[in-house]
Amino acid sequence: MDNLRIDGGRLWASLMEMGEIGATPKGGCARLALTDLDRQGRDLLVRWAKTIGCTATIDRVGNIFLRREGARPELPAIATGSHLDTQPTGGKFDGVYGVLAGLEVLRTLHDAKIQTDRAIEVVVWTNEEGSRFSPAMMGSGAYAGVFPVEEVEAKTDVDGNRFDAELAKIGYRGAAKVGGRNIGAYFEAHIEQGPILEAEDKTIGVVTGAQGQRWYEVTVVGQEAHAGPTPMRRRRDALVGASRMIDAVNKIGHAHQPYACATVGFIQSFPNSRNTIPGRVFFTVDFRHPDDERLSSMDAALKAQCAAIAEQGGLELEIRDFWYFPPTPFAPHLIERVRDGAAAFGYSAMNIISGAGHDAVYMAKVCPTTMIFVPCKDGISHNEIEDAKPEHLEAGCNVLLRAILEASKA
Amino acid sequence: MDNLRIDGGRLWASLMEMGEIGATPKGGCARLALTDLDRQGRDLLVRWAKTIGCTATIDRVGNIFLRREGARPELPAIATGSHLDTQPTGGKFDGVYGVLAGLEVLRTLHDAKIQTDRAIEVVVWTNEEGSRFSPAMMGSGAYAGVFPVEEVEAKTDVDGNRFDAELAKIGYRGAAKVGGRNIGAYFEAHIEQGPILEAEDKTIGVVTGAQGQRWYEVTVVGQEAHAGPTPMRRRRDALVGASRMIDAVNKIGHAHQPYACATVGFIQSFPNSRNTIPGRVFFTVDFRHPDDERLSSMDAALKAQCAAIAEQGGLELEIRDFWYFPPTPFAPHLIERVRDGAAAFGYSAMNIISGAGHDAVYMAKVCPTTMIFVPCKDGISHNEIEDAKPEHLEAGCNVLLRAILEASKA
Repeated sequence: MDNLRIDGGRLWASLMEMGEIGATPKGGCARLALTDLDRQGRDLLVRWAKTIGCTATIDRVGNIFLRREGARPELPAIATGSHLDTQPTGGKFDGVYGVLAGLEVLRTLHDAKIQTDRAIEVVVWTNEEGSRFSPAMMGSGAYAGVFPVEEVEAKTDVDGNRFDAELAKIGYRGAAKVGGRNIGAYFEAHIEQGPILEAEDKTIGVVTGAQGQRWYEVTVVGQEAHAGPTPMRRRRDALVGASRMIDAVNKIGHAHQPYACATVGFIQSFPNSRNTIPGRVFFTVDFRHPDDERLSSMDAALKAQCAAIAEQGGLELEIRDFWYFPPTPFAPHLIERVRDGAAAFGYSAMNIISGAGHDAVYMAKVCPTTMIFVPCKDGISHNEIEDAKPEHLEAGCNVLLRAILEASKA
Repeated sequence: MDNLRIDGGRLWASLMEMGEIGATPKGGCARLALTDLDRQGRDLLVRWAKTIGCTATIDRVGNIFLRREGARPELPAIATGSHLDTQPTGGKFDGVYGVLAGLEVLRTLHDAKIQTDRAIEVVVWTNEEGSRFSPAMMGSGAYAGVFPVEEVEAKTDVDGNRFDAELAKIGYRGAAKVGGRNIGAYFEAHIEQGPILEAEDKTIGVVTGAQGQRWYEVTVVGQEAHAGPTPMRRRRDALVGASRMIDAVNKIGHAHQPYACATVGFIQSFPNSRNTIPGRVFFTVDFRHPDDERLSSMDAALKAQCAAIAEQGGLELEIRDFWYFPPTPFAPHLIERVRDGAAAFGYSAMNIISGAGHDAVYMAKVCPTTMIFVPCKDGISHNEIEDAKPEHLEAGCNVLLRAILEASKA
């Protein structure tokens, strides 16, 4: 069983076939959640899984559990998966790889006629992207009890269509209750969506956890005035203050290396007129760090430094704590299985922290969880030009196979 | 004649009566150029001037010259004036004060039955604000030959209405040619539109010139990327670069004191999404200084410092020289008349540089020119809450009277 390998060619062919559903001219994919294209993708996957003898269970928010029964069905199952929905101009790999890598594991076990002790389930989580219905990671969040089911069902898209109605329309409003399945471990294979593995020339990212996140909304208020006749020393320029704060945010990120990320992604200045001193600026801050203590230290630095800048510039300052998501360390015994798997196959590997949100982050709340990353071209995702190499996808899937096989022993 | 004083109460009453035309609920004025309200304001003024025996000449772009004949009509006349149009949410004093102070001078001479050697003309310049038809200072610019008349006539407002048609509609498309009148000196009284006189507790601003201006459009290009998985050291964050440049702009302003003004009034960041590293930022720079050499040194500092910041951040940089207006020194002998006038009346006075654009700046191209500033409340203008004190307006008008009387001697 140690010589078992997945079929990289079959995995690639399945990715390409799935990518035809919602294919875009630039080689990407537009398969928004709960559209007819989403249905087509789900139908294809379920048909593939049933061909190899799996059963499909669908819960009320549309999460699909494709189960390959084990010798001891009463034991907690081993689950793997991700999502089939994409961004409006998304790629063929983000999410889809995790689902089809799981399918490829099942196909490999099927071909090799291996019966595992524990059942293995491949999961499709509904609406991970959050593009059509907000928030993101909706299906896994509902499963983990983060979002009440009724709240999810009442969500609407921009045209006012309700989530539950759209789900029913594509035939995936299932009967199973949301959450509480007997799952003993969850693995999720995913493209990195960042540039680290490629830059370090490693094939496998051993994901040790997901970064904690703190998001802020900052408002700086000064005094709007005529840019001509107002002397420098009398100004209370909100944009100058905000600019110094943005520089401070960046320096806080650099001061908390390795791992820290610090970004101002959004800014609006008022009245935004060439010859008027800005009276008010609004901007957002996105801090990420895998260690909560370091994240708190970044939080304290932000508040102290912005306050000092505001004070110096005669500006009013409001920093609103907009969102906090604590760091999620993954399960050490599963992380070791991934590391061992990479070593067994001779793949180069490195520890990595997930910076983006994934269904695995919610699953980590309810069962031992980890992820396997493979490189993606130039670190680019959420883009039609998202790309990954067949050999890397094959390697990640082999590691997933081995980790699942080990975990599935009674 | 040295004891002659204008009538401050009458000046105030005229300002208030003119302010009724286009009055806004908050006490301001909305009298946009070439609207029927503009016509009403012009009609009222012309009626007032004719009552005291003045003639009205209107040129092809609608500038009005109200002439009180002198004993020697062949000599160059002494002119004063400003504009009657306002911003959409403007005040009752910006521009209007300069026109009605001129009228008050004529009324005072009329009441005292004084015949000056030279004729005196009160001028209303068309569309100084540039709110409805762009650019600003259109009438005086056309008069000074900066804007060809045909170009001005073809300008359109946002609804596509042509300048010449709208001007004809209100009855102010005159027969006189634009420019070339026989004018020997031009004075313009104006509220300061800045906070300096109020802060220094001075009644009269002796305006020695107008600042030179350099405007720029700056584009910073980096690399758009996911805020989560992109390590700090691999980022090319256009907003961080732009923020450092905005801070540099501010420091360049402070480094060229006194007089320098440096403002970033407009900024746009792309894609402007909370969790995406900005890939491109566009912002404007407004530099002002009364000394062209210092303005050039600010220009050089801007380009060097922005280039260094871009280099350090791995960013592309484009700085476009968008507009250049050279410093305008006013006529020394007229400046002295204003200073002497303030001293004669015992008004506190100080030298001041005009930071904003005024019709006088274009007039300075074609004849000896200067301005008289009076304080405005909190330095605020282009706002319905713009305000000025009757005693300051009276003082400025007395100084104007005396300067004109002196200048009108053969």
